[in-house]
Formats: sequence, C-alpha cells, structure tokens
Amino acid sequence: MIDLTLIGIGTGNPQHLTLQASAALNGVDLILIPNKGAGKDDLAGLRRQICDQVIKKQDVKIVEFDLPTRDPKTPDYRQRVDDWHDAIAGVWSATIAAHLPKGGKVGFLVWGDPSLYDSTMRIADRLQRQQKIALTVIPGITSVQALTASHAIPINEIGAPFTVTTGRQLRDHGWPDSADTLVVMLDGDCSFQSLDAENVQIWWSAYAGMPEEILISGALSDVSDQIIKTRATARADHGWIMDIYLLRR
Amino acid sequence: MIDLTLIGIGTGNPQHLTLQASAALNGVDLILIPNKGAGKDDLAGLRRQICDQVIKKQDVKIVEFDLPTRDPKTPDYRQRVDDWHDAIAGVWSATIAAHLPKGGKVGFLVWGDPSLYDSTMRIADRLQRQQKIALTVIPGITSVQALTASHAIPINEIGAPFTVTTGRQLRDHGWPDSADTLVVMLDGDCSFQSLDAENVQIWWSAYAGMPEEILISGALSDVSDQIIKTRATARADHGWIMDIYLLRR
Ligand SMILES: C[S@@+](CC[C@H](N)C(=O)[O-])C[C@H]1O[C@@H](n2cnc3c(N)ncnc32)[C@H](O)[C@@H]1O
Ligand SMILES: C[S@@+](CC[C@H](N)C(=O)[O-])C[C@H]1O[C@@H](n2cnc3c(N)ncnc32)[C@H](O)[C@@H]1O
Repeated sequence: MIDLTLIGIGTGNPQHLTLQASAALNGVDLILIPNKGAGKDDLAGLRRQICDQVIKKQDVKIVEFDLPTRDPKTPDYRQRVDDWHDAIAGVWSATIAAHLPKGGKVGFLVWGDPSLYDSTMRIADRLQRQQKIALTVIPGITSVQALTASHAIPINEIGAPFTVTTGRQLRDHGWPDSADTLVVMLDGDCSFQSLDAENVQIWWSAYAGMPEEILISGALSDVSDQIIKTRATARADHGWIMDIYLLRR
Repeated sequence: MIDLTLIGIGTGNPQHLTLQASAALNGVDLILIPNKGAGKDDLAGLRRQICDQVIKKQDVKIVEFDLPTRDPKTPDYRQRVDDWHDAIAGVWSATIAAHLPKGGKVGFLVWGDPSLYDSTMRIADRLQRQQKIALTVIPGITSVQALTASHAIPINEIGAPFTVTTGRQLRDHGWPDSADTLVVMLDGDCSFQSLDAENVQIWWSAYAGMPEEILISGALSDVSDQIIKTRATARADHGWIMDIYLLRR
C-alpha cells in the first residue's frame, strides 16, 4: 500500500511553503524529485533547497529520477501528452517499487499548486489505476497569486468574473467574451501582441516571488514592447524564464 | 510612516499559513482584527487562534475593531459598497493612529488570498490616498485551491481555460461561453439550480479545509438536491456557512 502526497510548494519563493506542506515533507519515507536535465531550469535545485531547509527528520529518502521526454514524432498533441504521462507514471512506479518494496509514504513536490496547469495529478491517477494508492493533495501558492501579490492588485473587479487561460488559447481564440479580466499562463510568445491594445491594462511578472523577479505594468500599448524586450533579455541571461500576466479591459 | 502588510492566511485551516505569513505576523507592531459581531461566523476567532499559535514575539499588539456595516438605505450596489469601504478605511485610520501615533508596522489578516473577492486591498488603497503607506501583500491559499485539493482534482482540463465567478453572475448571465470549467464563489442561493444540469459534473465543498468540511461530487442532476439539503442543514447547525464549487461540462 502506497500513500502518495502531492505537495504544492509555491512558485519559487521557499517562504511560500505552508505549515501543512512542511509537515507533509517531514512525514514521508520517500520524496521523488524529477530531474529535468541540466540547463533546462533551476527547478530541481529549488526543490532540493526546500527539502534541505524544511526536512528535519533523518530518514526521509530523497531520490531524483529522470523525467522522460515527449516524443516529437507523435503528431497529435493530446496523444503525445497522454503517452508522455503514461511514461512518467511508469518511471514513478519503478522508482517507488525500487525504494519502498513493502509500501510506505511517498511525497512529490509540485510547483505552485497541484491543481493548476500541472500534470502530476493526472499521473497519480494513472498510478491509482495500476495499484492501491491513497492520494492526498496539499495546496500551494500559485503563480497567479504570486503575480497579484507582487503587484498588490485584486484579481477581480468587484463582483466580476475572471478567466485564467494559456498563451495558445489567447492567440487562437482571442479575448473571451465572458470576462474583462484575463490571467495568461504558459505563454512563450507574448501572445498579448495579438490583441487590440486599446484600453487594456497589463500587469506582467517574470520569476514571480523569486529573487530574480521582474515586474512591469501599465497600458498595454505603452509597455508591450518593453515587456517583449525585457523577456527576451532575461531569458537569455538566465537560460530559462517563467512569466505570467493579468490583462484588464 | 506606516508599513501595511496584508497577510493571506488561507481559508480556515491554520496549517495553510505560509512561512512568509508566519514571519510577517511576527514582524509587525500591531495586528488589526475585524470583529464582525457575535453569531455571524467564527472567523474572528480563527484569526485570533492563528495569532496565538504563530506569534512568538512578545510586543505584537493585537487589536480588534468593529467593522462598520453596509447601509441598506443606499439603493445603488456599487455606491453602497464604496461608502462601506470608505467607512472601513476611516476605522482603520483611527485605530492605527490611536495605537501607533508615531507610525510603525501594521499587519492585517486576510481570509484566503488578499487578491480574491476581498475588499481589504481596496480599503488599503483608500488609506494610501490619505497618508503615506508602504503596502505589502502576502499571498495565501485560496478557497479555490482548498476545494480542488480536497477533491484531488485539477482545476483545468489540459491546456483549457477556466472562469471563476460568483453565484449572482451565474444566476444573471448563465454559463459563459468561454470556458467549460467554472468555479463559483459567493453563492448563497445554490445558483447551479438555474443551469441545465445535463452533462454537468459538480464538485462542492463547504468549510473547505476546516474540520467541519463537507464534500459532495457527482453528476449535477444526481447530487443537486443533496447539496441543497446538506447546505441548509449545515448552515442551520453552525449558524453560518461558506461554500464553493467547480462545474465542468
Ligand atoms: C506548467 S504551469 C504550472 C503552474 C503552477 N502549478 C502554479 O500553480 O502556478 C507553468 C506556468 O506557470 C507560470 N509560472 C509558474 N511559476 C512562475 C513564476 N515563478 N513566475 C511567473 N510565472 C510562473 C508560467 O506562466 C508558466 O508558464
Ligand atoms: C469574500 S470571498 C473571500 C475569498 C477568499 N479571499 C479566498 O481567497 O478564498 C468569500 C467566499 O469565498 C469562498 N470561501 C472562503 N472560504 C471558504 C471555505 N473555507 N470553504 C468554502 N468556501 C469558502 C466562499 O465561496 C465564500 O462565499
């Protein structure tokens, strides 16, 4: 029997960790950390740093595993992602079986919150179909909250809805009718360029909550170029970037 | 000069507190806790409990203040809310001036995350217009994340957008076209009843993350009545309720 806990760790600020996450990290037998390979980003390093800072128990085993990559030869996007999740689930199974042959408690550190644009829960679902697993999810501070906190802005206008979406959705479908506030994630292409910038305000954060944090806000028509340039430079300097923004019209 | 820190505390589970929030609570001179009056809910009590558990510094002063109420005689909703925020800002000012005549650091505990359907940031804005205030916002676990964590579900479908809205919006405008996933907050009337229930799944939580937590999920047509009844009973038993749900079609 495996107890699997998906632990939201916030988005790069180790101080985002909750007391619950900290207790969970100290309550497991094994922690799995995906190793995305050198150069990609510092996220595996940050996960290790959080473990070092927070774990006081001696016998928590921390194991890194190589994350399989998506097969670019599979043409269909959904199929490619599904196959990839299957492959990751396979690696999880094998790693857990190798280190906890008699079962036990496994923890998995998830960037931000496990519910938000993250595949960990879908991979855990696959594992649950193969073996008896008790799943617990511990919420974490999301990049959406890191964005609004750093800019000190409310996410919604009073009583109004907001939509959270991806760069690809914004590019392909434009601004949805339903909400005058959009939060855009997973955008490698500054997709706000595809919008009519008139009367749109933007609040943009890269490395939100981290020491490298960059904040730019203003009328989209005024700051659009500045964001594009700043993003390109920061990405080149650090070798990776994560950014998120809120648009309000 | 006043340093004002709005500290997200999560939605009822004291273990939701982040390390950053805990440090902030120990770093201020004065903490303001709104006292909504007996019977309304246990939230002031929970705020005090969090302070008791977390604050180790001796000289943090904790002061409760009476929250003004909205004037039901003001017919326009926006005007009523604006007036109310003005009145609250006035009480904040007076309370801070009385306890920190020479300035200092003030902390304010905010339910969930300060950016999400909460007026604290708007009130802080008013204060900033009247006096010199440095504002810091510390993110907290939201009820949205408490909901998805307890049900162990992702908030989004892969790569797809989602909309967060209120019960009133859902009642008045129906399901927005833009997203197949809706999160509904601030709904005193089980507004999902206004929807065509066919092919809609619901995940509902009351007192999410708290010891009283109640979870119901399933096809909306199957569990709608059960949620309505459970909500009415729980509300009568506790004297108050907070609930939130996710709808997926
Ligand atoms: C795969 S999603 C994971 C989101 C994560 N689960 C969360 O709760 O924020 C990655 C996207 O999140 C956003 N993101 C995550 N961390 C960020 C950070 N520190 N600063 C800015 N954006 C971030 C970016 O939009 C990025 O493309
Ligand atoms: C004024 S809003 C404040 C939201 C808060 N700032 C947050 O981050 O969740 C109050 C609404 O939040 C939701 N809510 C807050 N705490 C909750 C809880 N523990 N369980 C269920 N819903 C909750 C309910 O929909 C409630 O009507």
